[in-house]
Amino acid sequence: MKKAYEKYIPFVPLKMDHRTWPDKQITKAPIWCSVDLRDGNQALVDPMNLQEKLEYFHTLVDIGVKEIEIGFPSASETEYEICRELIEGGHIPDDVTIQVLVQARPHLIQKTFEAIRGAKHVILHFYNSTSTLQRKVVFHMDMAGITKIATDAAQLIYELSQPVIAEGMDLRYEYSPESFMGTEMDYAVEICQAVIEAIHATPEKKIILNLPTTVENCMPNYFADELEYFISKLPSRDSAIISLHPHNDRGCGVATAEMGLLAGAERIEATLFGNGERTGNVDMVTLALNMYTQGVDPELDFSDINKIKSMYERCTKMKVGERQPYAGELVFTAFSGSHQDAINKGTAYMEESGSEYWEIPYLPIDPADVGRQYEPIIRINSQSGKGGAAYVMHHNFGFDLPKAMHPEFGHIVQVETDRVGTELKPERIYELFKENYIDATAPYQLVRHSFAEFTDEEGHSHVTFAGTLRHKDTTFQVNGSGNGPIDAFFNAIHGQKMDRFTFVDYKEHAISDGSDSMAVAYIQLRDQEGKDHFGVGISHNINLAPLKGILSAINRAVSGKEA
Amino acid sequence: MKKAYEKYIPFVPLKMDHRTWPDKQITKAPIWCSVDLRDGNQALVDPMNLQEKLEYFHTLVDIGVKEIEIGFPSASETEYEICRELIEGGHIPDDVTIQVLVQARPHLIQKTFEAIRGAKHVILHFYNSTSTLQRKVVFHMDMAGITKIATDAAQLIYELSQPVIAEGMDLRYEYSPESFMGTEMDYAVEICQAVIEAIHATPEKKIILNLPTTVENCMPNYFADELEYFISKLPSRDSAIISLHPHNDRGCGVATAEMGLLAGAERIEATLFGNGERTGNVDMVTLALNMYTQGVDPELDFSDINKIKSMYERCTKMKVGERQPYAGELVFTAFSGSHQDAINKGTAYMEESGSEYWEIPYLPIDPADVGRQYEPIIRINSQSGKGGAAYVMHHNFGFDLPKAMHPEFGHIVQVETDRVGTELKPERIYELFKENYIDATAPYQLVRHSFAEFTDEEGHSHVTFAGTLRHKDTTFQVNGSGNGPIDAFFNAIHGQKMDRFTFVDYKEHAISDGSDSMAVAYIQLRDQEGKDHFGVGISHNINLAPLKGILSAINRAVSGKEA
Repeated sequence: MKKAYEKYIPFVPLKMDHRTWPDKQITKAPIWCSVDLRDGNQALVDPMNLQEKLEYFHTLVDIGVKEIEIGFPSASETEYEICRELIEGGHIPDDVTIQVLVQARPHLIQKTFEAIRGAKHVILHFYNSTSTLQRKVVFHMDMAGITKIATDAAQLIYELSQPVIAEGMDLRYEYSPESFMGTEMDYAVEICQAVIEAIHATPEKKIILNLPTTVENCMPNYFADELEYFISKLPSRDSAIISLHPHNDRGCGVATAEMGLLAGAERIEATLFGNGERTGNVDMVTLALNMYTQGVDPELDFSDINKIKSMYERCTKMKVGERQPYAGELVFTAFSGSHQDAINKGTAYMEESGSEYWEIPYLPIDPADVGRQYEPIIRINSQSGKGGAAYVMHHNFGFDLPKAMHPEFGHIVQVETDRVGTELKPERIYELFKENYIDATAPYQLVRHSFAEFTDEEGHSHVTFAGTLRHKDTTFQVNGSGNGPIDAFFNAIHGQKMDRFTFVDYKEHAISDGSDSMAVAYIQLRDQEGKDHFGVGISHNINLAPLKGILSAINRAVSGKEA
Repeated sequence: MKKAYEKYIPFVPLKMDHRTWPDKQITKAPIWCSVDLRDGNQALVDPMNLQEKLEYFHTLVDIGVKEIEIGFPSASETEYEICRELIEGGHIPDDVTIQVLVQARPHLIQKTFEAIRGAKHVILHFYNSTSTLQRKVVFHMDMAGITKIATDAAQLIYELSQPVIAEGMDLRYEYSPESFMGTEMDYAVEICQAVIEAIHATPEKKIILNLPTTVENCMPNYFADELEYFISKLPSRDSAIISLHPHNDRGCGVATAEMGLLAGAERIEATLFGNGERTGNVDMVTLALNMYTQGVDPELDFSDINKIKSMYERCTKMKVGERQPYAGELVFTAFSGSHQDAINKGTAYMEESGSEYWEIPYLPIDPADVGRQYEPIIRINSQSGKGGAAYVMHHNFGFDLPKAMHPEFGHIVQVETDRVGTELKPERIYELFKENYIDATAPYQLVRHSFAEFTDEEGHSHVTFAGTLRHKDTTFQVNGSGNGPIDAFFNAIHGQKMDRFTFVDYKEHAISDGSDSMAVAYIQLRDQEGKDHFGVGISHNINLAPLKGILSAINRAVSGKEA
């Protein structure tokens, strides 16, 4: 009994004696052609209306795309009208070429010439299907018959072009042997060469030969082999610009495009976010930003990707996936503690070293370069480590917790995420911080206090502290002096039950700018058993904040409320 | 002024004198390891709870995954408890190995050994980060220091394993030099060899060396070069199973995994639908079905992909994209008319030829092989050609329109889609068919009729028709005879105003099975100017359907209601 998978005919890779593409690198941007308004649009459940197509077109222009396939004007009245509106409405900048698709069929070609009248720069893109499979099951034709369809169309187009070109249109040609990937390479060379000749292409007036992976049916390296072979065999290679049009049926559209560039392609047809038939076309955003992160200028502007994404989602009614490279909602997040920690360290390294390079682990691109932000990078859930909570406190709320506190506060947050079972929002992280540290004001509380301070002839500070403390319902006076406020306070509480704690470390900083700025003090005490206790105090008074911090640490220790 | 893209450090590919991977092919499935419950889960906004993790685990088992990374049990209480529940709750089949992740840190390793007690088959997976960047900005350590972290962990794990193995656990080891793709290959070889030795791996007791593209930072072919180089240089290669763990930051995870297999990898860590940190892990579904469509048994069962997708979306609260290969909602649609036409022809070819191979253009996999259907393949919008509407009528409603009718009905549908500007549902297509053809019952209507039929000695049929026709408010009798019912009817209406039409073609078929089946007749008439007119009649009576069809064609012609 035959297994279900045995009904599929495997792709047979070319036998290559020698290949050069794997030793090459991408060092410059290809010519970009957007097929969003044609291939992308035709695959939408609700195709775009005129207004949406115009908005999309203008966005493509703003991104910097210079060749834009606007439709298949002979296919329907809607398509025809959109073409006319673009031309007559003056929407097309002088440096942008519109491209129109047409099957290699005479009446459609004629209608297409009607559709483009008045345009300045046009690529007339004609195609017919050449694959073994399509010849066999769709066209029931031999190679000569398929070639004749292409060359007849090429001749007709050439003839119809002459008066149009004479009138001043910059009209170029593009031919696609559709389903190229499934075509025998020697035949692909033969039909493309025949078209080059039929349409009188020359090195000065090149034809675009667009080689589509109409259905992606082999691995990208096999495609690169085919392409290298094709290019090496094409007699009039100098009269052609080699263009690719990758689809994504095997999830390899990006790799196919990139390896295709290594193998000699000079132009890529793509769509924003990979919209297109079935699994879509190759994603122009990913291709461009892949180059960008390799230090290559993609010559496209994706510096405000959220705006482009929002236009795309509105016009197409499609959704950009949460994990779509560069554009997805979640791609600048790091949930794992070790990732968060490494990102923090990379950020710190770049700040400290003044590095001119991007050297942050787990972030292959600076989110700011695509108009996105660090802020949403870290979300806190039960998988996050100690670094994440501290990062949120710092970047969202300005609290720069001392390193020694990170594990304790990280643990507090983790217990909470384990308890609720969901991600914690930054606001909840702040609440936990406030509840656990700032609000630790019992049993000991400072009711009032005064400091007196002078510096002696040798430059030593002398500080005297006098204050009233409350412990539950009792209040009592304490007095002490030292070489600074903290020292004076500690001396003042000497002899109280609080004096089993010794002072270990202290850090204080402002947490807002301007006149109403607050001071926050982080205090680390150690008890007689050697256990550390942390406390935090906040005050407008930079002397008072540490005292509140000390009491916070003591209160947490004696109340058993530490994590 | 430096451009923003110039801050990125380009990946430097290995210089390869010779490479063998591009000449290879994938001929068998790798060992699959799911990391859904660890890498996938940790990247969720809401990580799965225990119940969801269990449901997900059982689905993975049903799919046929034999190695499943269940979590990072030393990282949190939740993770620890899930590990214990899987073991103690008896959820793990005897042929399934659970895998647990742990950093190369002693206290976490010890906690991990507590977590796995009682399990039958375990892979203990430890890792530390080895890349140039992480050594520099995160660990501030030289290669020797990083190697020592790995070998210390390996030694500790080896020691702690001995009693556990003695008690009968099948315990294996996996080591990941995290961020392998960004590590100098000679150093990667060095640290992996050191780990192999520290953990006493042998060809009989292999270690899994898992080489992650933690952040995908180079093209898949460069990765394959690295891998081929790494494998060729590793002294104890026979003591290792080479495993990959591709991420997808450049959108090339699938290609990286596939070329990695060509370059010698034997095992792949992946997730369903590519869930995972940032842009996700490589998608196990796509990898497996890519093999499947090349005639290679993937050894995983995705025959009911909708069920798996539904579990995935419920448990992770993520959404599988509309264009995700094999699983996306839109991947078995064909909006373009020429695609629809080719699919129809491919389907017809397979039926007629009895081909044992899958030979349908634009559908790289038989939707039925993943539990999906032809029905939703074709939606009708303004981009669809004539074939699409006919396909829907045939496949959704059983009306097999004659080829000659396709353009006319296609045009009717296209006008409607242009008018409404959205996709038409199949029901609306049917309505248009009914309104335009079946309901064309004015001005001429057959009120009643009778046939008499006999066959003469020479075997010729003689049919006599007598009927009452209504034209607006007038009724009149007609009589005629001929060699069949249609001929008799045409002779009967001779001399009426209807007789400017001549009969061209006719097709009739049943449209439902069983006793209440209906006959539908498609009629093609031609008028004196040579224009064709189509009509459709439906009746339980196979003699009556064509008469109604003839009147439908005449009524459409004379009422000017043709498209």
